Amino acid sequence: MELLDGKLCSEQIRREIKEEVDTIKTSGKRPPHLAAILVGDDGASQNYVSMKVKDCEEVGFGSTLIQFDANVSEEELLNKIAELNADNTIDGFIVQLPLPDHIDDNKVILAIDPKKDVDGFCPENIGKLCLGLPTFVSATPNGIMELLRRYQIKTEGKHCVVLGRSNIVGTPIAILMSRNNDTGNATVTIAHSRTKNLKEICRSADILIVAIGKTKFVTADMVKEGAVVIDVGQTRVPDKSRESGFRNVGDVDFDTVKDKCSFITYVTGGVGPMTRASLLQNTLIANQRR
Amino acid sequence: MELLDGKLCSEQIRREIKEEVDTIKTSGKRPPHLAAILVGDDGASQNYVSMKVKDCEEVGFGSTLIQFDANVSEEELLNKIAELNADNTIDGFIVQLPLPDHIDDNKVILAIDPKKDVDGFCPENIGKLCLGLPTFVSATPNGIMELLRRYQIKTEGKHCVVLGRSNIVGTPIAILMSRNNDTGNATVTIAHSRTKNLKEICRSADILIVAIGKTKFVTADMVKEGAVVIDVGQTRVPDKSRESGFRNVGDVDFDTVKDKCSFITYVTGGVGPMTRASLLQNTLIANQRR
Repeated sequence: MELLDGKLCSEQIRREIKEEVDTIKTSGKRPPHLAAILVGDDGASQNYVSMKVKDCEEVGFGSTLIQFDANVSEEELLNKIAELNADNTIDGFIVQLPLPDHIDDNKVILAIDPKKDVDGFCPENIGKLCLGLPTFVSATPNGIMELLRRYQIKTEGKHCVVLGRSNIVGTPIAILMSRNNDTGNATVTIAHSRTKNLKEICRSADILIVAIGKTKFVTADMVKEGAVVIDVGQTRVPDKSRESGFRNVGDVDFDTVKDKCSFITYVTGGVGPMTRASLLQNTLIANQRR
Repeated sequence: MELLDGKLCSEQIRREIKEEVDTIKTSGKRPPHLAAILVGDDGASQNYVSMKVKDCEEVGFGSTLIQFDANVSEEELLNKIAELNADNTIDGFIVQLPLPDHIDDNKVILAIDPKKDVDGFCPENIGKLCLGLPTFVSATPNGIMELLRRYQIKTEGKHCVVLGRSNIVGTPIAILMSRNNDTGNATVTIAHSRTKNLKEICRSADILIVAIGKTKFVTADMVKEGAVVIDVGQTRVPDKSRESGFRNVGDVDFDTVKDKCSFITYVTGGVGPMTRASLLQNTLIANQRR
């Protein structure tokens, strides 16, 4: 078993980005600038956004953090988005999800200028992904593809089972893996909560990508000998032994599954850092396209 | 075995549309108007477009046919699209594909106003399909979904194998079948030319949708007893016994496969008429949204 080391891989990507930023700065141009909107005080969301801002600093990007109370009106949020769309000093921005119930997520996503949608959540960018056109591929699927690519894992003709069909992970990764190109060409099965014979289907996977949001859902009996397993799950569970008071648990029961795999990610240092690195890649692309 | 009668079903849809059009006219509003651009003199394309225009007449839509020589410049074509985008008397329009080699299909598709893209080929509309937002679902996938719906074929928990991954059929139908709703909720496998064990995968399908463009590719040994088989293929082969000089052959070897199926479409009177009816549905929606 070899660990797919997302931490190591993302550090390499960050170094590459930093070099690009240095070149941009040397040439007298403005470096990439990412803005992030955070609504409310959800601990996990706060944590994610602050990491994203820190990532920007590390690679030499500019960053702007915009915080709203949980009771901000939809209108006020949409006004801020319009402002960011028009702001020429900002290359891309994200609105951290989930949003409070009184705000319509879709309305917010549709308000973002696709050219600045570095999360790749807008219909236009998802559609371009489907069509194989240049776009912002959303950060998690992009990070997974990058991880497979950098570990030179062959996908052509392999059976890839994607567990979960969310708009931001399951569906786009399924499309990417099935595309007619060097990093795709897999036979892809999209499985989910309504799937029958789930164990059997998982066991038929050469590459198993799990994004179902249920802790330790995938157990050893669901994994084929020699499979590649990518765990996208990251659920916070209380843990008094930790200073933070919690730890992240994946969708895969790592300890029992790992010995059956050729390659596997671990919940920490796996897909998470690759997702963060992908957001930086997209922001750099947004800067270069302008 | 029961035939999924796309002809019968599409006639019903057309009657429903005609009733709507009558109501629109009675209320003094302008009925839906579809424009179609045809480039060159490919026999099949000419035939498709003329059928679409005829369909419009039958249900009381207005229609405009715009024809260009095969050597029309890309610029001239894009200018015409800009004109149609701005024309308030036209609700939707299509550009019949394929286009001659000197014209970039993607450039043309990206030029169409998504609000008038009744073929549902624009990135924004494909992205909305992925997100489950109101959109124009492209005509063939929409027609297949409508056929399954009207024959009350249960999809939840079924294994649907889609053979082919094109932008306009395979990929969108795979997404629609996997969605979390009454007409979706299937476990979906996207199979294609690089798929290994193709026969075995097809044999595991409760619902087999074939859009691979190879005549009589699916044979009886690839179909499970009791499966639902949808044949999207439609290839013209020379046939001197016909007045037209050709006949359409599907991707499914109907004669040997039919007896194993619970439901099956036939190349004539199957998916084709449903596709045509879907274009009318989309044009009606475009009219109602304006």
